Amino acid sequence: MSSCESLSQELQTLFAFIDQNSEQFIDLLAKAVKIKSISAQKDTRDDTIFMVKWFEQQLQTRGLTTELVDIGSEQWPDGQTLPLPPVLLAQLGNDPTKKTLCVYGHLDVQPADIADGWNTDPFVLIELDGKLYGRGATDDKGPVMAWINIIDAYQSTGIDLPINLKFIFEGMEESGSVGLNELIIAKGSTFLANVDYICISDNYWLGNTKPCLTYGLRGNAYFFVEVKCAAKDLHSGVYGGSVHEAMTDLLALMSKLVDNKGNILIPGVLDDVLPLTASEEAMYESIDFNHHSYREEIGTKRLLFETKSEILAHRWRYPSLSIHGIEGAFSGAGAKTVIPRKVIGKFSIRLVPNQNPDKVGQQVIQYLENEFAKLDSPNRLSVIRRKASKPWIANTDNDNFKAAKLAISSVFGVEPDLTREGGSIPVTLTFEEVTGKSVILLPIGGCDDGAHSQNEKIDRKNYIEGTKVLASYIFHLSKN
Amino acid sequence: MSSCESLSQELQTLFAFIDQNSEQFIDLLAKAVKIKSISAQKDTRDDTIFMVKWFEQQLQTRGLTTELVDIGSEQWPDGQTLPLPPVLLAQLGNDPTKKTLCVYGHLDVQPADIADGWNTDPFVLIELDGKLYGRGATDDKGPVMAWINIIDAYQSTGIDLPINLKFIFEGMEESGSVGLNELIIAKGSTFLANVDYICISDNYWLGNTKPCLTYGLRGNAYFFVEVKCAAKDLHSGVYGGSVHEAMTDLLALMSKLVDNKGNILIPGVLDDVLPLTASEEAMYESIDFNHHSYREEIGTKRLLFETKSEILAHRWRYPSLSIHGIEGAFSGAGAKTVIPRKVIGKFSIRLVPNQNPDKVGQQVIQYLENEFAKLDSPNRLSVIRRKASKPWIANTDNDNFKAAKLAISSVFGVEPDLTREGGSIPVTLTFEEVTGKSVILLPIGGCDDGAHSQNEKIDRKNYIEGTKVLASYIFHLSKN
Repeated sequence: MSSCESLSQELQTLFAFIDQNSEQFIDLLAKAVKIKSISAQKDTRDDTIFMVKWFEQQLQTRGLTTELVDIGSEQWPDGQTLPLPPVLLAQLGNDPTKKTLCVYGHLDVQPADIADGWNTDPFVLIELDGKLYGRGATDDKGPVMAWINIIDAYQSTGIDLPINLKFIFEGMEESGSVGLNELIIAKGSTFLANVDYICISDNYWLGNTKPCLTYGLRGNAYFFVEVKCAAKDLHSGVYGGSVHEAMTDLLALMSKLVDNKGNILIPGVLDDVLPLTASEEAMYESIDFNHHSYREEIGTKRLLFETKSEILAHRWRYPSLSIHGIEGAFSGAGAKTVIPRKVIGKFSIRLVPNQNPDKVGQQVIQYLENEFAKLDSPNRLSVIRRKASKPWIANTDNDNFKAAKLAISSVFGVEPDLTREGGSIPVTLTFEEVTGKSVILLPIGGCDDGAHSQNEKIDRKNYIEGTKVLASYIFHLSKN
Repeated sequence: MSSCESLSQELQTLFAFIDQNSEQFIDLLAKAVKIKSISAQKDTRDDTIFMVKWFEQQLQTRGLTTELVDIGSEQWPDGQTLPLPPVLLAQLGNDPTKKTLCVYGHLDVQPADIADGWNTDPFVLIELDGKLYGRGATDDKGPVMAWINIIDAYQSTGIDLPINLKFIFEGMEESGSVGLNELIIAKGSTFLANVDYICISDNYWLGNTKPCLTYGLRGNAYFFVEVKCAAKDLHSGVYGGSVHEAMTDLLALMSKLVDNKGNILIPGVLDDVLPLTASEEAMYESIDFNHHSYREEIGTKRLLFETKSEILAHRWRYPSLSIHGIEGAFSGAGAKTVIPRKVIGKFSIRLVPNQNPDKVGQQVIQYLENEFAKLDSPNRLSVIRRKASKPWIANTDNDNFKAAKLAISSVFGVEPDLTREGGSIPVTLTFEEVTGKSVILLPIGGCDDGAHSQNEKIDRKNYIEGTKVLASYIFHLSKN
């Protein structure tokens, strides 16, 4: 497909270079995978910081100017304080006649241990049947290395980099992107001032065969529902029958949040959800997504909805409420006869346009307080709103998406699907709000890459053709 | 009170000896407390075995014949196998013209660490304001040592031991009395064959001021309600809205078990509960129990019932259902956005006469399966019955209770309250069923001793006067 007749001479040269140097690109990814940059573990914090510095070195070697922004330290529950990995800012080119693209990605990875069920050492990249296995292969070291690869491609082929490139790479994404939002806001009038486009390089295709571009994310509102019944945990034999148990109240409340058909029961929460348009529905119909395979992958006999459109719509453009668990209750194996003194139910609502997290938060609190009042309980209720994120939806009728579509066509010979994601990447909206420019999510990995699972991988094809897509993307951006 | 005029010469002598030797009795308890016989911890298993052997030595020194019964080993979740502490059988006297009393107690203790909030080292017995603080002081080393003390008293004063004494002391009570039930059954035709009375020495007064005798215990039926929705844990952003979540089904089921007034909602479960009789109610009225202090101790604004009688009745003679927690759901601190693939709700029902655990088990399973069918869920439900114990209630109009009442009157000058307990001591019923003889629970500690808590204690008065009660109890048993 990369030999498509209409391909410009530059892209032909770049694609040929990428094909010829694929082993070298895979070697670079192997070097990155080898660094145990697990941000969630104390013992790998040094590795995570090293990863950022190693990557900075890679960029400096290629002529980028770099800056490591200190975002301070964090205290662990055991009282120990550890430095946070710095955020890496980098820049290549400062030509006022060119457009400027800012790319976001992350250098840290999820925990991984061969004992968790990996078939091979998670920190040794290994190729089997065209798949490159290793922690971070697809999330997010593969995509991030692809950005270095295209710099190599342009520089080695002597083709002038057609745009100015800026990078923001962090080392805390898998641990809540601590400090990143504040940094983006702080850099709004400096590093980000003259940016024309934003590209988030941290998601996946909807399937395995057809590329996509992502233009929407759900937000999230997370709640803690705390009920206290006693000054201490009580023995159910000694006290059971005389005490208003906190668990009984909590379960009464939590069972009234959502029914088992997925309908959210909190009054008003659905009021601001935009109605489904005919064109949206038609688009869902045409998307390359097999809901039968999806059902099988989950391992359930039946999904909440029967059609592809309904399933996509309920994952992307309708809110959903999930109950995650209870803190403070007995959660171990075996049989313990405790009446827990304080229990904290945890649930979250995925938010969609035009839901507002503050309004939803108030509706949830009001509803739970009303329902609790009906129980006439002597216990104490406290509903706590955790940090919420807004939904994000982008206009796709602009130069950023146009360039990305052309890039995918130039490599794969097909138009990408336009997709949304059900999850949240809060910095997406921050980038958009701070710069006022178009943000795109441009994935290169496949849906079955197992980002947070055992045996994470990226297909060789996705990594190499994805590198071509990025090379082509900046080429087309420059033609806008 | 111990100088009550009607006291026999023997009891006056015994009581005087006990008063004169109270420091020596406290020293013995201090030696026992010093041994870290925590059965629930691997690293103290050797101490627990040592405790049994140390105690055997104490008994041998006093002329008892002893036997350590090997009850095998247990495997820990990590695969390690540890020997179980042996059960200590002991006997003093074998006179066919005397009655034989068998006493049960335990030599192991709950875990304790000064870091948990103890004011002093839990394994160093210390007296402050008439209270003897230390792990096991009241549960159950204090009561067990009191049995040695009375042997000393009889032997030192030259008063012939009026009955034959048999002891069964175990080292696994705080870890489920592993192997004990089987041992009691196995010894039915040998060690336990010629026993006339059983005394369980392992519970507490209802209050702090008035002694009691305990004639009833609730049983327990424990259930695991497992719901599976997927082959793996799912991200609530990616999958939420498309999947029948296991937590939603589980909460729907668990919220239908009991209402927040304590009413069990499972049809048929209450059918066999014996109706409250007028005499029972009158007895509750006269019991020395302050439900206001009880409410304050729990730390709640309001109990489920307003009167003393209702509260006692619902702790002792009515069933109660407590929801303990959920295994498999998110239970940590913080906010995790998981849809758990498999969740196991845990609850138990305290059983009372004439409820039958098997019948209740069938009713619970039938009810949950019916309710689950109404949900029309594709998820898989599995309700698992855990080992259940029957309720126990004793006839108090017999020589065993008569002797214990006289013993308490002889020491405290008051008639004891007749109480039940809401918890379960399954071996109680086993002793009764195997021997066909009267079983009594004869407590010496107070209700505020904090058996499983920090700063466990027994009052000096309870320990010393309790020793007198036991000395008097066997004296009166011999007069039957």
